[in-house]
Amino acid sequence: MATEKPFDRSALERFCRLEPFVSQPAGVAGLYDYGPSGSALMNNIISVWRNHFVLEEEMLELDTSIMTTYDVLKTSGHVDKFADWMCKDLKNGEIFRADHVVEAVLEARLQGDREARAAKEGKTLDAKQLEADKAKDAKKKKKKGTVVAVELSEGVRKTYEETLAQIDNYSGEELADIMKKFDIRSPESGNELSTPQEFNLMFESSIGPTGQLKGYLRPETAQGQFLNFKKLLEFNNDKMPFASAQVGRSFRNEISPRSGLLRVREFTMAEIEHFVDPENKQHPKFEEVKDVKIRVLPKGTQLQGKTETYEITVGEAVEKKIIDNQTLGYFIARIYLFLMKIGIKADRLRFRQHMDNEMAHYACDCWDAEIQTSYGWIECVGCADRSAYDLTVHSRRTKEKLVVREQLAEPRIVEQWQVEINKKTFGPKFKKSAKAVEEALMTYTDECYAKLQKDLDSVGVALVEADGQKFEISKDDVTVKRATVTEHIREYTPNVIEPSFGIGRILYALLEHSWWVREDDEARNVLSFPVSVAPFKCCLLPLSGNAAFEPFVKKFSRELRKNGISTRTDDSKTSIGRRYSRNDELGIPYAITIDFQTVEDNTVTLRMRDSTEQIRDTFENILKILKEDN
Amino acid sequence: MATEKPFDRSALERFCRLEPFVSQPAGVAGLYDYGPSGSALMNNIISVWRNHFVLEEEMLELDTSIMTTYDVLKTSGHVDKFADWMCKDLKNGEIFRADHVVEAVLEARLQGDREARAAKEGKTLDAKQLEADKAKDAKKKKKKGTVVAVELSEGVRKTYEETLAQIDNYSGEELADIMKKFDIRSPESGNELSTPQEFNLMFESSIGPTGQLKGYLRPETAQGQFLNFKKLLEFNNDKMPFASAQVGRSFRNEISPRSGLLRVREFTMAEIEHFVDPENKQHPKFEEVKDVKIRVLPKGTQLQGKTETYEITVGEAVEKKIIDNQTLGYFIARIYLFLMKIGIKADRLRFRQHMDNEMAHYACDCWDAEIQTSYGWIECVGCADRSAYDLTVHSRRTKEKLVVREQLAEPRIVEQWQVEINKKTFGPKFKKSAKAVEEALMTYTDECYAKLQKDLDSVGVALVEADGQKFEISKDDVTVKRATVTEHIREYTPNVIEPSFGIGRILYALLEHSWWVREDDEARNVLSFPVSVAPFKCCLLPLSGNAAFEPFVKKFSRELRKNGISTRTDDSKTSIGRRYSRNDELGIPYAITIDFQTVEDNTVTLRMRDSTEQIRDTFENILKILKEDN
Repeated sequence: MATEKPFDRSALERFCRLEPFVSQPAGVAGLYDYGPSGSALMNNIISVWRNHFVLEEEMLELDTSIMTTYDVLKTSGHVDKFADWMCKDLKNGEIFRADHVVEAVLEARLQGDREARAAKEGKTLDAKQLEADKAKDAKKKKKKGTVVAVELSEGVRKTYEETLAQIDNYSGEELADIMKKFDIRSPESGNELSTPQEFNLMFESSIGPTGQLKGYLRPETAQGQFLNFKKLLEFNNDKMPFASAQVGRSFRNEISPRSGLLRVREFTMAEIEHFVDPENKQHPKFEEVKDVKIRVLPKGTQLQGKTETYEITVGEAVEKKIIDNQTLGYFIARIYLFLMKIGIKADRLRFRQHMDNEMAHYACDCWDAEIQTSYGWIECVGCADRSAYDLTVHSRRTKEKLVVREQLAEPRIVEQWQVEINKKTFGPKFKKSAKAVEEALMTYTDECYAKLQKDLDSVGVALVEADGQKFEISKDDVTVKRATVTEHIREYTPNVIEPSFGIGRILYALLEHSWWVREDDEARNVLSFPVSVAPFKCCLLPLSGNAAFEPFVKKFSRELRKNGISTRTDDSKTSIGRRYSRNDELGIPYAITIDFQTVEDNTVTLRMRDSTEQIRDTFENILKILKEDN
Repeated sequence: MATEKPFDRSALERFCRLEPFVSQPAGVAGLYDYGPSGSALMNNIISVWRNHFVLEEEMLELDTSIMTTYDVLKTSGHVDKFADWMCKDLKNGEIFRADHVVEAVLEARLQGDREARAAKEGKTLDAKQLEADKAKDAKKKKKKGTVVAVELSEGVRKTYEETLAQIDNYSGEELADIMKKFDIRSPESGNELSTPQEFNLMFESSIGPTGQLKGYLRPETAQGQFLNFKKLLEFNNDKMPFASAQVGRSFRNEISPRSGLLRVREFTMAEIEHFVDPENKQHPKFEEVKDVKIRVLPKGTQLQGKTETYEITVGEAVEKKIIDNQTLGYFIARIYLFLMKIGIKADRLRFRQHMDNEMAHYACDCWDAEIQTSYGWIECVGCADRSAYDLTVHSRRTKEKLVVREQLAEPRIVEQWQVEINKKTFGPKFKKSAKAVEEALMTYTDECYAKLQKDLDSVGVALVEADGQKFEISKDDVTVKRATVTEHIREYTPNVIEPSFGIGRILYALLEHSWWVREDDEARNVLSFPVSVAPFKCCLLPLSGNAAFEPFVKKFSRELRKNGISTRTDDSKTSIGRRYSRNDELGIPYAITIDFQTVEDNTVTLRMRDSTEQIRDTFENILKILKEDN
């Protein structure tokens, strides 16, 4: 979906680079530094996040290592599947992300088609279309796709559009087919491109001096939380449900990052892993959020090829099963409230449900909080029900049970598979592998037991894999049967609901949503951050360099600090008007000016950023206002 | 210096592993996860740090990328010099740090000597010596050095002791000589060891898919701050002095980390780069700290082979030139005040000055805040005057001036070297290299100009290096002379004072300093953190699982959260006494108990961790106490 109103991103970017939000002193794509304003803004967003989630829910916060071993990430699936497809310009060696290159070329052809048809019909495109084109144009320029005005046939146009609609879902082979079919070449040089090859997106390194212990920079903070599950459950007195949380740096070695702060190689994430009973996904505090109204784009709508959203309360969405369960609904509502708190505009936020083919195979429902920016609708928070997948795979690797044991109020009788080993034949037959074969038999899934029983009953033998070999067992060695047992304790692997926040993306979206230009003067940029996240809360401005102001600057500055109000003193020699503008650009909500009257009666001027309104009162009274709003 | 009182580190370690401070779920040496208590403790230390330094001094905080390019770290010297010496067991391939291996073996031999002599004299060592030996023994056990009671000659003993005293200062060659001379073998297997080889301690990786852009995980946060210097100066309205600051993860690929949390491969640092005029290192707020009394170990004392410390005010230390300048003194005092604030014990903290051969060649003075732990005196904060080194090397690489331009109150006349190019001969002679040769001539140091002038005067020609070639210039091409110019602006490269905090080490030292066991009961561990850094401020304890308490737990918990008091609710079924003990172990300063009286009159019991004193009052009054102390 294109931007609804034209947004001058380049102006914002010029302004933010000039202003001390982000910089790229090392000049490497996808690696950014946050300057004094950017870093303070990020710290404040994280601080609000911590209060809103960790403190409010008594979550158990962790700080796990970034350097992660091969074993852990092999288990999580990242070693095998955390990859993108890349292709190389066969002449100059330039490397592209395969899906991006297809997108750029097809979009350029569609744009050429629109231009050609407009020219033929002898009229320019209507205003709205032109605007949309301009936005696309800006996007294209980034990718340097060349637009040639050539008309396409109705069929080709449709194929291109369908391909673009699914661009995120293609496998490497499918991308190769598409590139061949549509003769996709480098949008920069026009040269032929290589067949797409897989590139793992994790930064790889080596731990210690031997070169034999492979490590990766974590691609998410989640795995560290799963590894600590057992200790956390213990810390929580074995009580369920509970959540862990982590804020920290993660890494993604992007093939060719090009969308500013939205696609970066190093980023700060905040992730929550909420562990919940799979048979009870009610949430004790759901009542508190059920009336929160959110804008949704459910999978049903998307399957119809539409993007219309509508408003609904979280309570109704859960009741109607649009959102799978209360816990998921609770977090979606809390995410909404968090984003509102830091200043994201409600009308530019939507919750989009993942389509079934888009979700990981183990996930049972997943929603993205998408925020509208000049790059389109951007996924900023994911909220997925990951079922028991993560704890199951890690438990399988470490052979340590990651389960909750719940004392049942009343014992219950359950039917389950039982395996009885015939010790007389088993030991002698499998010798030193006996233990491994037994272990393998004990960890079968229900389906495997059913098959095993069938095989033993029908042909009398079956194959068992253990220690990387296959062993033949006969019905003399084991008895496999369904039997009823009385359970006093219920043992289960918790499910995980995972809200995962891309803090850098949220920060960028907030910059766009907070930025505006005063109508009377184009050079006057304002960043209207809420006080809670504003990089600095207050600016202290002596009217001039007159020595009489100095003791007041010192005294007020000390008082502000003592009250935890982060302050920037601007005693530069430019005019007060200019310095006010500078404050607006830095998003500082309050400015206190010290002038000659201050020296006489201790009063100061308080100037408000958004309204430019000014109040005169004693410093002490002004401080009270600021304290209440901090 | 050995530990003065025996400290049962293994008990603390057992306890901390059990408690949720640190864990090592991936099982890799030197990589730790901080659990709920550890991570909250760290966050709180950082938060106090931020208020104490960044807010108090209006420092410009940054958040720069961890992944750092080869160019940047080549420039800073880390690619060439950030290395340790390692050697390999020639039979089993085990790898050791060369200096550690020498240390372990010589210490074991000295211990054997002491034991042999004691046995010969027929008496056991005196009590104090025994204690010191025990401490050393524990250290040795870690390194698995085997002690054999063999007496050494007076001369050998002395050589060993001298070698150990300087163990941190040897080059690879010197270590090789020592190993050969003293026949140092693996302390674990007794096998021969390879000659020490250099091992760079940075984790290396590759940025992007080409494999051609080498990146490293930063070994310190400082370089990111230097790279942003120009923007920071601009942001600060070109006003000097000012400081930048950064809190973040850094990495060090240790050869064989073995000292728990003190030698790790991934750690959180907090660094300040205070930029100051080299001709004026006075500090405007020095007056405020001059009476702060610190314990110092100056280089003079160490040169005499002594470790006696004494107390002195920072004011006196600067006046007597023990500390080089006011700014360095100011930060040393501020570091002291910070460490006191978070709970480090004053009598186990000292400031040790670096000896001249210990400092980097460019540093002009350097002090370490060392904290006494069961591992000995540990460097936890460094505070160095790094002169203009960092800005100079980065400026040389990027060819961007990193200087401050100061408008002089009165113009001044200075004598300086001037080079006049004779355009008539210069261009034709050097053709396309003319520009490079001119540039090379313009960036000479004073010494080079003097030599150039001498050469041109004496032999009429001189060689100039430019573009990797040598060019001959004659006195017809240039005139080099001393001339007086009138300066209206003074241009200088700022010096850097760098306080650098190892947050993980400080956290570990704080654990040791805060930990004690109640006299009446050995199983009752207490961690007496100050409220400001305690992982949780308050524990909420319903007397039992009685349903009548539930609404009170909910209500009080909400009130506490609303007031920003981080709370742990412990409604487990164990007795109140046990739960109080558990609070003590977690270092939670306050516990609020809800009982049947609460249901009647809204009063609760407040229990204090350190004194175990209890107060009964209404919840509202208790909340007031907690708020005031938060």
